[in-house]
Amino acid sequence: MLPDRILITNAARRITADIRRTPVIGIPGWGLLKLELLQLAGSFKPRGAFHRIRAAGAGPAGVIAASGGNHGVAVAAAAQALGLRAEIFVPEISAEAKRARIRAFGAHLVVGGATYDEARLASEARAAETGALMVHAYDQPEVLAGQGTLALEWEEQSPGLTHLLVAVGGGGLLGGIAAWHRANGAQLVAVEPEGCPCLHAALAAGRPVPAPVGGVAADSLGARQVGGLMFPLAAELHAAGRLTPVLVPDGAIREAQRMLWETVRVVAEPGGATALAALLSGLWTLPRDARVGILVCGGNTDPGSVSPSA
Amino acid sequence: MLPDRILITNAARRITADIRRTPVIGIPGWGLLKLELLQLAGSFKPRGAFHRIRAAGAGPAGVIAASGGNHGVAVAAAAQALGLRAEIFVPEISAEAKRARIRAFGAHLVVGGATYDEARLASEARAAETGALMVHAYDQPEVLAGQGTLALEWEEQSPGLTHLLVAVGGGGLLGGIAAWHRANGAQLVAVEPEGCPCLHAALAAGRPVPAPVGGVAADSLGARQVGGLMFPLAAELHAAGRLTPVLVPDGAIREAQRMLWETVRVVAEPGGATALAALLSGLWTLPRDARVGILVCGGNTDPGSVSPSA
Repeated sequence: MLPDRILITNAARRITADIRRTPVIGIPGWGLLKLELLQLAGSFKPRGAFHRIRAAGAGPAGVIAASGGNHGVAVAAAAQALGLRAEIFVPEISAEAKRARIRAFGAHLVVGGATYDEARLASEARAAETGALMVHAYDQPEVLAGQGTLALEWEEQSPGLTHLLVAVGGGGLLGGIAAWHRANGAQLVAVEPEGCPCLHAALAAGRPVPAPVGGVAADSLGARQVGGLMFPLAAELHAAGRLTPVLVPDGAIREAQRMLWETVRVVAEPGGATALAALLSGLWTLPRDARVGILVCGGNTDPGSVSPSA
Repeated sequence: MLPDRILITNAARRITADIRRTPVIGIPGWGLLKLELLQLAGSFKPRGAFHRIRAAGAGPAGVIAASGGNHGVAVAAAAQALGLRAEIFVPEISAEAKRARIRAFGAHLVVGGATYDEARLASEARAAETGALMVHAYDQPEVLAGQGTLALEWEEQSPGLTHLLVAVGGGGLLGGIAAWHRANGAQLVAVEPEGCPCLHAALAAGRPVPAPVGGVAADSLGARQVGGLMFPLAAELHAAGRLTPVLVPDGAIREAQRMLWETVRVVAEPGGATALAALLSGLWTLPRDARVGILVCGGNTDPGSVSPSA
């Protein structure tokens, strides 16, 4: 069920007119930053959402998703672009700003319960009732293949990268990138906030297990458990010494946000600055002769939340 | 004294290791955005500053400039990178945030008078005394050639653009771009805020004349008078129907800032959003079959100043 290079190449062809080709900029001393926060809807999520919808097809009942965050915004944006109805189930705790953005893309927003899990269950019940197409936040093959198109695009833009730093939430993005680089290719550095360590917990346990969800990046990286589809591949690459997991504290994430603004004039959300935080904090050390790619995967935050200096 | 393609190509070779190659992103319905706000020091200004310093050379007295804005920050950054002393003369009215950034790049900051003109006169007197190299904000041939490297780089990245939208302050950037496109090439749309119309005033008078300085973009585009070096070329292209001047009100600039954040997650300063404002406001109309490039030339502002929605 995991995508390979052929499936990802097909996915890229399918969604090429739907998404933006996001730029890469080289920053001396850091590496090559892929600015995926400039993607439609402010994160990488539309890649998987568009591909899931285009590959699986949606009828008159449209599409449905559970997410109070970037995935919900992305599914709403994709449905609007494709002229489909969308119902997005959000938990009570979701931020009003994100809800407003989901509504702004024309989706019908439903508060589906106190927690994400309750909202997800409610969305599944509703999908069974209406026949709407479920678009999962990370654990569907078409979603993984869609996120994998980012790795293909990046390789075309920046050939020969030896190390890719990528933030991990539920693992859909890392899974897609790992699928692209499985046979050969770059070393992966999988960066998680200390407050949301579900890949670490899974690698320690040998299988996906529930982990705490908290800290500054919880709204984008706070999955309770890493995806079952991507986990075997992450474990395989980890065992082969080709995937390095790194945990970063919230302070390093805030500092990376601040440095992105000061140095590059980029406003990243905490989850979007998490990969860079591993490098800037020294918690991951640059190997000699490495050619490093750093993914800035989202920018859906209040721009005033990064420390200004003008 | 105006640069041509050969001089600009040489300038690009000279400063290639000093500056960043800034990315371009395509936004459907708008055009191809060149994100020059991601340049070192947050604006296009280091291109001209590095080239002036490398071409003219600086002795032990270092470099000197008058500017309380992006040019001052850029000269400070260039001097720091090249290991040179820098004295930056700012007017009393300059913002403390910009002063802090000039100091952060290691420059010696001097409050040189009540207005920009007084600061410039003070900086010239000081340069005569110390022998430091004067780096003018826009009206020096090496500065124009340095800014022109942006047009060369953009043409490599986005061949075949038919129209380039560029904001105008003192005209150094427009002059460099016009010099690159003089013989053949893109149509230029020169966008000024209604509050700082010095190119409009010069085109009406047939020569550079003093014009009002005010409005939201005055801190980056507020030159009292357009540069004498670039004006004859602007007038030539205007007479040939190849340069279209456009005035935009402050409201359109603020709206373009907001749309850049909402749609692309880019935080531009008012001057950096001014070119896009001409398109989004409808004050400049997209010709049929146009392939439009829009320059976002600076991002030195408080990120919280663009309306958030998250």
